[in-house]
Amino acid sequence: MNTRDTLKADKNGHLTIGGADCTELAAKYGTPLYVYDKKYIEDICGVFDKTLKEHYGEGRILYASKAFSCKGIYRLIDRCGIGADVVSGGELYTALSSGFPAEKLVMHGNNKLDEELVYAVESGVGFIVCDAFDEIGRLGRICEQRGITQDILLRVNPGVEAHTHHFVQTATPDSKFGFSLPNGDAVKAVEEALKTSGVRLRGLHCHIGSQIFEKDSFALAAEKMTDFYRRVKDELSCEFDVINLGGGFGIYYTDEDRKLDVGGYAEYIVAVTETLKRCVKEKQLKKPFLFLEPGRSVVGEAGITLYTAGSVKKIEGVKNYVAVDGGMFDNPRHALYGSKYTAVLANRMNEKPCEMYSIAGKCCESGDIIAEDCFLPQVKRGDIIAVLSTGAYNYSMASNYNRNAVPPAILVENGKSDYLVRKQSYEDIARNDHDCNLI
Amino acid sequence: MNTRDTLKADKNGHLTIGGADCTELAAKYGTPLYVYDKKYIEDICGVFDKTLKEHYGEGRILYASKAFSCKGIYRLIDRCGIGADVVSGGELYTALSSGFPAEKLVMHGNNKLDEELVYAVESGVGFIVCDAFDEIGRLGRICEQRGITQDILLRVNPGVEAHTHHFVQTATPDSKFGFSLPNGDAVKAVEEALKTSGVRLRGLHCHIGSQIFEKDSFALAAEKMTDFYRRVKDELSCEFDVINLGGGFGIYYTDEDRKLDVGGYAEYIVAVTETLKRCVKEKQLKKPFLFLEPGRSVVGEAGITLYTAGSVKKIEGVKNYVAVDGGMFDNPRHALYGSKYTAVLANRMNEKPCEMYSIAGKCCESGDIIAEDCFLPQVKRGDIIAVLSTGAYNYSMASNYNRNAVPPAILVENGKSDYLVRKQSYEDIARNDHDCNLI
Repeated sequence: MNTRDTLKADKNGHLTIGGADCTELAAKYGTPLYVYDKKYIEDICGVFDKTLKEHYGEGRILYASKAFSCKGIYRLIDRCGIGADVVSGGELYTALSSGFPAEKLVMHGNNKLDEELVYAVESGVGFIVCDAFDEIGRLGRICEQRGITQDILLRVNPGVEAHTHHFVQTATPDSKFGFSLPNGDAVKAVEEALKTSGVRLRGLHCHIGSQIFEKDSFALAAEKMTDFYRRVKDELSCEFDVINLGGGFGIYYTDEDRKLDVGGYAEYIVAVTETLKRCVKEKQLKKPFLFLEPGRSVVGEAGITLYTAGSVKKIEGVKNYVAVDGGMFDNPRHALYGSKYTAVLANRMNEKPCEMYSIAGKCCESGDIIAEDCFLPQVKRGDIIAVLSTGAYNYSMASNYNRNAVPPAILVENGKSDYLVRKQSYEDIARNDHDCNLI
Repeated sequence: MNTRDTLKADKNGHLTIGGADCTELAAKYGTPLYVYDKKYIEDICGVFDKTLKEHYGEGRILYASKAFSCKGIYRLIDRCGIGADVVSGGELYTALSSGFPAEKLVMHGNNKLDEELVYAVESGVGFIVCDAFDEIGRLGRICEQRGITQDILLRVNPGVEAHTHHFVQTATPDSKFGFSLPNGDAVKAVEEALKTSGVRLRGLHCHIGSQIFEKDSFALAAEKMTDFYRRVKDELSCEFDVINLGGGFGIYYTDEDRKLDVGGYAEYIVAVTETLKRCVKEKQLKKPFLFLEPGRSVVGEAGITLYTAGSVKKIEGVKNYVAVDGGMFDNPRHALYGSKYTAVLANRMNEKPCEMYSIAGKCCESGDIIAEDCFLPQVKRGDIIAVLSTGAYNYSMASNYNRNAVPPAILVENGKSDYLVRKQSYEDIARNDHDCNLI
């Protein structure tokens, strides 16, 4: 298991996170329960920010809202000094209502709606990353009508795709996102943006994948992007002063993944900034303001989910199932991607694992599995099961499937805890049900 | 496309559903929009109910709440004279608050929580289907404490699994659900239930799959279940008077699926009831009260989703993407199962399809695709795209991923429309965000 200093087994054999006993958290808040470790988030944000500033200079780390969006997380990362990206009106609303400074927000999205662009422009977000030809014109008109000039970037596909532990180069990437650099769309988009009033093109954004453990792919993206910056400077007499190289650093889910401490993550930032500095120098470019997006790594390992074990079903010669009080409604990632997770018995950490279990949810669906092949002590009803590294894309993808309630999320620090998101009630779930006049 | 009499193209080339022009619905309610055809639901419920009564006698059709649960749908199916199953406290809450009669509810679930069992027992649901050994005892204690005797069924795995167009027989099914009949667990569970006070064992339930187009598999399940009824009668001197043979009838998503009219569905019910009547006679059993669960077929084809086309991206030599204002947050089934859908241009039904499109959502994720290989006329921003057969498992699995709002659902009849579920607001999405005292 993950043995960061904030995630430990105490002398009673109980899992603790941020100094809080998981069995006590389960008793106090009920299960399922998302638990986030404040210190982990502060530490990793601090290291990312410090490394970027020390090794590069002008730049900003952007938190990926899609990993986990609620008012509390924006307040926390704002105090850590980093910015955030948002990809919808709902994320923008949440960030702004937490008091997050609009100018530190960057808006992404392959199909931003008119009302989302208006909302972003009127709120004063720092940058909007345009993703399609007609979006440039639509945004320009929205800005002109309001007498605003909006800083923008363009999302380009540099022809590098990282796939976790390796990467591939492609000439014509199959992606709903952005403008292809190899096929010439990117240069056309730059020309379009430069002649569009209402927007000020400051640079380009690329995002080569997620859950990446491959430093060379970032370096190659930096090479290709700066080649293009040089070309734009030569051919269009335009010198960009901002670059966004994306990120999407990988996190540890199981022993199949690399396990990085904060120093290990810092090396990714060092690697990409060293390459960028070298490229800028070699290609005689202005050193751009650098955005980096470390993706799920900020909250992924900071979060765990606590469940209570229910029915245990041993099917002789087939499999052992333990059913928990959650399921694909609070963590759909196994159902969606076949994702793997590490699980432990939070109330009996001192006992040796002896049996393999599939952790099933309570949804009425055979595919409702949270994790397969979990090696655990003999599980009994009432045990507290902790599934690790659930901080990213669990709460954010949660649903009311089977009209189950989305679990609450809490933050812990030095043994103290409080809600980030309260539990849904049945009334919340049915809140928008309407007394239809046709029935 | 599906050309049921309630889903047509009018003389303006607009798609209509239940007599309502889809382009007008999109303008009135906005998109994305779930639209349900009242007449289709009434017709299919009516045929199921009538066929069961005429061909068998005592029995009840059960609506599958998990396909689409909101107060309005329970009111509608109650007026159609059928019952419903629920699989969680949230579904039970929704049904009861719609005024649905508790005695016509059957509660399923592989891991019912204590509070859900208490809620069901105290509400007076008709049957609880026990799924695990310890659930029988837990339920018995809950009932005894309250001086209630609860009618129950046991979920068994008869060793028949239907896989859409074929079926397999298995000795030890790998399922988180129920008691295996072939391996002897089922008989042990019957013995356990018979000696447990507080519960009255009335019969067995089986569910052999979903999206099934294979009548023989139902017939085989009826054979195996009545074999077991006879065995229980002989060995345990217990004669059951209820049977639940499940269902999960398939629906038409694309031309790869069989297309059944209501008469076609009726044949499934005729087939299973004929087999059951024969088995009961041959095996000299009391004719049991019969529950059938036609699953998604009640609402699946009754529902469509309307989207507005946004960015259109043609990647030369690769693919055409049209991005819509929805995505995996309103329909995660392609992402989850690779499900296929039929799409049409609701505002230009009279134009010939000429290009293949992938319909992408607006979520910040490459896998956010609603449907692949959709053959459509040249799509332009602002077109209204209708995705068909989205009535089941779309709203019910919807999430707030990327903090997008769950779309509203409306009911249409004779050109009239009203909300079943109103749209979420940004405030709704952030309603439970808490002002965490640790930040």
